[in-house]
Amino acid sequence: MAVGIGILGGGVVGGSLARRLLSDRQAILQKTGLDLELVKIAIRDTERSRLFPASYATTRVEEVVDDPDVDLVVELLGGRRPASSLVRRALQAGKPVVTANKELLAAEGPELFDIAAGKGVSLLFEAAVGGGIPLIRPLTESLAGEKLTRVIGIVNGTTNYILSAMSEAGTSYEDALSEAQRLGFAEADPTADVGGADAAAKAVILGGLAFGVWADAEAVYRRGIDDLQVADIAFARELGYVVKLLATAESLPEGISVRVHPALVPLSHPLASIRGATNAVFVEGPAIGQLLFSGPGAGGEPTATAVLGDVIDASRELLAGAQVTPRVIVGAGSVAEMAKVASRYYLRLEVSDSPGVLASIASAFGENQVSIASVRQDGRGDEATVILITHEAAERDHQAAVDQLRALAVVKQVAATIRVLGVE
Amino acid sequence: MAVGIGILGGGVVGGSLARRLLSDRQAILQKTGLDLELVKIAIRDTERSRLFPASYATTRVEEVVDDPDVDLVVELLGGRRPASSLVRRALQAGKPVVTANKELLAAEGPELFDIAAGKGVSLLFEAAVGGGIPLIRPLTESLAGEKLTRVIGIVNGTTNYILSAMSEAGTSYEDALSEAQRLGFAEADPTADVGGADAAAKAVILGGLAFGVWADAEAVYRRGIDDLQVADIAFARELGYVVKLLATAESLPEGISVRVHPALVPLSHPLASIRGATNAVFVEGPAIGQLLFSGPGAGGEPTATAVLGDVIDASRELLAGAQVTPRVIVGAGSVAEMAKVASRYYLRLEVSDSPGVLASIASAFGENQVSIASVRQDGRGDEATVILITHEAAERDHQAAVDQLRALAVVKQVAATIRVLGVE
Repeated sequence: MAVGIGILGGGVVGGSLARRLLSDRQAILQKTGLDLELVKIAIRDTERSRLFPASYATTRVEEVVDDPDVDLVVELLGGRRPASSLVRRALQAGKPVVTANKELLAAEGPELFDIAAGKGVSLLFEAAVGGGIPLIRPLTESLAGEKLTRVIGIVNGTTNYILSAMSEAGTSYEDALSEAQRLGFAEADPTADVGGADAAAKAVILGGLAFGVWADAEAVYRRGIDDLQVADIAFARELGYVVKLLATAESLPEGISVRVHPALVPLSHPLASIRGATNAVFVEGPAIGQLLFSGPGAGGEPTATAVLGDVIDASRELLAGAQVTPRVIVGAGSVAEMAKVASRYYLRLEVSDSPGVLASIASAFGENQVSIASVRQDGRGDEATVILITHEAAERDHQAAVDQLRALAVVKQVAATIRVLGVE
Repeated sequence: MAVGIGILGGGVVGGSLARRLLSDRQAILQKTGLDLELVKIAIRDTERSRLFPASYATTRVEEVVDDPDVDLVVELLGGRRPASSLVRRALQAGKPVVTANKELLAAEGPELFDIAAGKGVSLLFEAAVGGGIPLIRPLTESLAGEKLTRVIGIVNGTTNYILSAMSEAGTSYEDALSEAQRLGFAEADPTADVGGADAAAKAVILGGLAFGVWADAEAVYRRGIDDLQVADIAFARELGYVVKLLATAESLPEGISVRVHPALVPLSHPLASIRGATNAVFVEGPAIGQLLFSGPGAGGEPTATAVLGDVIDASRELLAGAQVTPRVIVGAGSVAEMAKVASRYYLRLEVSDSPGVLASIASAFGENQVSIASVRQDGRGDEATVILITHEAAERDHQAAVDQLRALAVVKQVAATIRVLGVE
């Protein structure tokens, strides 16, 4: 029996998916036993040339969801509107939904999972985080018996491309961004990427998968890469670190911490070697130890592959008449307050090199319960730079120390503060 | 409703699994909605102290399989006998089976899958390849829509530990093996690891997962690491490569090639950075590009985590009364003959440095349709060494060229021939 597939969105991912459903129908049938039939695809503009015959296309999204021949809906519109109401409408009609929409899931995930569970249909979303990298099944099924402690992702290809260029070629942030835009790795308006909002939505989803706790996407702590200076990336490298934008979900005594910020990653850490637009997710747990998954984080073909995997899975469940694998069980855990989350920090201070300067800096840290792991001073007189790495301290203590540093006459500028990845 | 779990084998993995089923019962229930109840565990010797109360233990394996309270059987005995008959007996009784037994699966996989499918129950085996690394769900579900081209694994921790020591510390094979034995990374009888048999069984399983073709484990081409010399590992590094034992399953025009052999891996390749006892699997496909999964390849806790993930999955299907996910569909594809498989090669020749020596070497290659990519000569006179890297050539042509080289008066010895990983 064929499963009728309706697609919302005919962009690079939707187009690639439609083409593959048409060209690989026999191969998929042979490999999986499932006959997947493209029924209809909603696109913006019927005039544009596409990867599929125009007869499949419509410009009316509701027509796809409501078509009685469409058994399963793939949502690739992105953004919350009109995706949210279309996904709800499909689920309410008992049609499984596959989506790659990170904003929608981050904002409305638990509510949508509830509707899907109530109707006994699947809501799958492998492509929403890490593009083509399989994450959802490993995290929710393979590791279902593990009490994970931490999941750390490099989940934004644009920022990793920019940071790799800054690190490897010594390019400034502005030049690296322009180059990324020229090569198509960054949007004309890069705000969502470089400011961390894209990574924050993915961090919410990773936290949900790993810990069953769905953080409020708007409230997730996030710091982007747009204020990073190439000087600090060079200092970091001298100290044995590379700077990465990390999306972290971590189980702490205070609750689940979900956050996005750049961090100094030790060169020996598996995440340090993830270069360019590649994505990776690093998983830690007491029994499993450390796992790394890496691969293409974006792109039409890899993303369509992840979506197709979900379509196959959801079709199997549809034909079996059973939703066997509840992907995410949203539990009652709480989100940790950022002020209480502990981190090591790298700091660069521009100082006047007068007698006692290091002593007054050390006091500012000591009085706020922050201890210094290493310190180095470059230059003399008015051009002196102090590079510090602290031991772990709670965010609020670190901030208090920085405020006190700023008030010191000998400290001309706290030129940079960047977290340092804690390694077990 | 509780799912009764019976375990065959109380070694390091079985003991860890039993302990976690007992101590984490509430946590698993909360996270997955499943109540997993340890019913019985078959061990060799009731006198030994264990990670679980003696009341659960029995020395009679059939008692576990036949217990009416056991709904699901976990087989951790290893080896084909008596595991094969016990797994069959459980499946025939309609009880799902989770196993970590690579020998059994490599030899009897398709037959066992048939029995399981006939009875409508699951046969899961995440821990059989790559220990704690999730592979089965990514390969068979997440990537179900992809026509994979190649899967390459570093799936034997013992040999990777030995090769890492040879490469990083310049240790001889013999010393590295002794050190690995002392540290518990190698068995007293290391034959199955260093000779490639362990990796070959895993290669069969990888080939089955990726291509639905089950190669004959006995007939799989395999070359181990026991004849590798530290000199060649040093030369390889100078040329920009590191030597790894690779388990490969590859789709070629001639069929599916399943093979195990050491290979020079370019230092820039993701597999090059996999050190010590860590395992990794590298996956390639036209749409997905390149994926890497890495993590602990062995050890009681990581392996028990993988087994527990399978137990949870199989329990969900059992309670839903549906076998939704046929993990492996064994198809009709054929296995490629090794003689026809093409590879690049590294060769080290000990030669007498007389005029025309390079010309006669080059002729031996040219007459067998093997072309040389690079050549370098060290030393003079009777102590000269020629290091060659060839372009891709079929195995039989390469062998013919080597035979011809051996017959040359100027070639005192073909001291080493090692494949070179082909990179897209």
